[in-house]
This record gives sequence, structure tokens and C-alpha cells, in this order.
Amino acid sequence: MQASIRVSADPRVQYLLRIGDTALILGQRLSEWAGHAPVLEEDIALSNMALDLIGQCRAVLTHAGTLEGAGHDEDQLAFLRDERDYRNVTLAELPRGDFAFTIVRNTVMATFFKQLWERLAASSDAELAAIAGKAVKEARYHQQHAADWLVRLAGGTEESRRRVDRALGDLWRYTAELFASDAVDEQAQASGLGPRWGDLHDAWLAEITHIFDAAGLAVPAPVPFVSTGKAGVHSEHMGFILAEMQHLQRAYPGGVW
Amino acid sequence: MQASIRVSADPRVQYLLRIGDTALILGQRLSEWAGHAPVLEEDIALSNMALDLIGQCRAVLTHAGTLEGAGHDEDQLAFLRDERDYRNVTLAELPRGDFAFTIVRNTVMATFFKQLWERLAASSDAELAAIAGKAVKEARYHQQHAADWLVRLAGGTEESRRRVDRALGDLWRYTAELFASDAVDEQAQASGLGPRWGDLHDAWLAEITHIFDAAGLAVPAPVPFVSTGKAGVHSEHMGFILAEMQHLQRAYPGGVW
Repeated sequence: MQASIRVSADPRVQYLLRIGDTALILGQRLSEWAGHAPVLEEDIALSNMALDLIGQCRAVLTHAGTLEGAGHDEDQLAFLRDERDYRNVTLAELPRGDFAFTIVRNTVMATFFKQLWERLAASSDAELAAIAGKAVKEARYHQQHAADWLVRLAGGTEESRRRVDRALGDLWRYTAELFASDAVDEQAQASGLGPRWGDLHDAWLAEITHIFDAAGLAVPAPVPFVSTGKAGVHSEHMGFILAEMQHLQRAYPGGVW
Repeated sequence: MQASIRVSADPRVQYLLRIGDTALILGQRLSEWAGHAPVLEEDIALSNMALDLIGQCRAVLTHAGTLEGAGHDEDQLAFLRDERDYRNVTLAELPRGDFAFTIVRNTVMATFFKQLWERLAASSDAELAAIAGKAVKEARYHQQHAADWLVRLAGGTEESRRRVDRALGDLWRYTAELFASDAVDEQAQASGLGPRWGDLHDAWLAEITHIFDAAGLAVPAPVPFVSTGKAGVHSEHMGFILAEMQHLQRAYPGGVW
């Protein structure tokens, strides 16, 4: 059984882990649709988006490993940390739910990622800027896909509307964490590595409001609750994801079984 | 609960279903690796190949529905048939197994598909020829990927070699079905729709022998057993795949849940 690795507390590394881990775990959730979407076109679309996210994760974690300087590659970073050392936002780890939940979460997350990658494309870190330049195109497509579906579902049948409303009720309270800034953010901002995530809120909300308007949905009021995934304190769902993801890597270190 | 559809016995439609269903079920098996491959690069590679196969399936089933003339779209054809009406070869439906099994199966299947698509690119059916022209490039990549891994695994550790040998022992006897021709093949050959699958055997074996030589593997002797997936008589594994694939479509007809 492979032991866990410990990762540097360097705030640059931590900033990158938040991005890479959020893409990894959201990609994991989207990939659960493979073979389960009832329409082949959506099976392909969701799987493609999962692949985009896993690819983004891979690039960001590879770069985090370089900055860290401890020789960890992207696979060690992706698979060999303890739960408390994963830095993804809690919203990404919530179970995939039904198609409405997936679409509402994708709307929220893709809009966030689009704002983030747009800002990161101007990072003082040339490698991160290059990753962002590619990723922002993917995020734009993810946002468009989710927004189109949101309009269809919210304006569809009574059942589809009911499910959208339920999804929104279930997940909106996890959005505040996206914009909770801390010392890691401050240092990223100061060094030019990337924006304080809190500074993305207003642009994010403007785009969300625009999409929700088109779908005939009211933007829910802010909620005082702030989830804590970025600090490594995850929901009860995280352990199950990691057990599934890590099983092979830990049982056969460096192997391919 | 959505009822099953019945599909035309037109041999052109049946010929296409063998292709589309084999791609569908093999794609399904490959997609099971999403989030389970211990190396991010392979997770992405296998998921991409699954997407290629699902995309090929979609194109072929759409065309089969057109030829059939009963108004069935690709989703109805993919999801709403009874088990006995699926025409995939049995080899495609065997459980995903370990990574060695996946690689050996992919070597066999991608080499077969490459030969098939190359011949179908000259089909008298212009739509099928166009589908094949795109698909053959994907099959070539799948073959290359599998062959590269086969060499690494067969010449790797004792454990990896043992697993390759076991996979070969488990699946070789399912290869004969690929080349068992019947009346559907004869009509396809006569009309110029596509080759008798039996006529692909020698070119397939020559390529397999070449790959196996490079991997230091002996090509197993032919086996008298012929599996019967193409005739709709499937292994015990098929029902589980279909239960998983069809659940949503049947529970919510035409819906997206």
C-alpha cells in the first residue's frame, strides 16, 4: 500500500492545488455520466467536458509539482494525498445528482472557471498563463452548454422545472466558498500569480444573473454559510470519491492496474 | 416504462447494427475506466477512445435508422432494444477486467476495426463511406495505443507479463466470431455495402502477428468455439450492461434524467 505524500505549504502551490483539485473532482463527477446519460449526444458532451477538466487538472498539478520542487508528478499529486490535503471547493464534490443538478452546478462552476481562467491568462507565471489561455476556451464552451440546457429545463415541463428549483435550493449555499478569499489569495494577487477569488464575484454574479434571467429563474439570496473544501475540510462525500480514485494507485504503486 | 422497439430484419440494417453495437458496447466498457485509471494520462486516453467509439456508434446507428425507414433515431436504437436484438460481438461485452485485459482486447478490436473501416471507406453507400473515412483514423490511433502498451506490458515485470498471458488466454477464443460470415455478410458483399467480415481475417492476423512479435508473444492457435453475439445470443454480462445503460431512458422516455 502506497503511503500518502505531503505537499508544500507554499501559497503558490496551494493556490494551484485549489484550481487543479476543483477541476479534478468536478471532472470526476462529470465522468460518472459516461454510459449513463440517456441520450448519446449528452453522454458524449458530458464526457468531453470531464476530459477537459481532467486535462486542466493535469496541467495545473504538473506545474504545481514543479513549483513545489519535491519531485511530485501530477499523478502523485492527484492520487496520493490524504483527504485533508485536497483543496477543491466543496461544491465540486457533491454527488452528481440528476441531470438538472449537473446542469445547474455546471452553470455555476463553468461561469466561475471562465472568469478565473480569463484572469489567469494574464498571470505573471508564464506557464500558468499558457494553461489558462487554452482552458478559457473550454470553460466558455462548458458555460454555453450548461446555460442552453438551463433555459430548456427551467422552461420545459413542470417536472424539469421542479428539478431545477430543487437543484438550485440544494447547491446555491455552496457558492459562497468560491469567493471566500484568504492569505493564499492575497499572496497570489500580490505576486501577480492570479486574482483573489473574491474579486471574481461581481463579474460571476452578473453573468449568472444574465443566464438565470434568460431561464426565468431568480438568483437566490446570499447565504451566510461558507463551506470549507479549500481548507481541506470536506463533506462526507469526499472520502468515497477518493476511495474510488485512489484504490488502484495505492494498491499498485506506480503501476497501471 | 418505455417499451422495446423492434428493428427491421433488412440485412443492410443488420450489417450496420453489428458495427454500431460493437462500437457502443466496447465504448461502454472503455468508459468504465473514467476515474479509475491510476494514471491521469491513461484515464484521458481511454476516455477519449470510448468517446470515439460512442461517436462512431452514433453515426452508424443514425444511418441504420434512416435505411430502416421506421423513424427510429440513434437513441432509440441504442437504448430501446431487447438484449436479443443487440448485434455486437461477444468479445466487446466481456467485463473490462484489469488494464492488461483492456489492452489485449483493444489490440484485437482496434486492429479489426481498422481493417473494417478501411474497407468500408470504399462502400457503395456514400454515407457509410464518409463515416468510415473518419473512423479509420481513430481506429489507427487506438491500435497504436494498444500495441505500444502491449509491448510495454508483455516485456515489463513478471506480474505484467502474467496478466497479459492470462488476458490472452481468457479472450482469444472470442476472436473467431469476428470472422464468422453469414447471409448478412454475403449480401453486404454482393451489394458493395461492405466486406464479408471473414475476408478481413488474413489481414487482421498478419497485423496481430506483427504486433505480437514485437511484444514477444506467440499468437495462440485457432479455437473451434465461436461465440454468438452477432446473432443476439449474448454472454451473461450483456444483461448487466443493458440494465445500466437503459435504466434512465426507459424510466423517463425521451427525457434527460
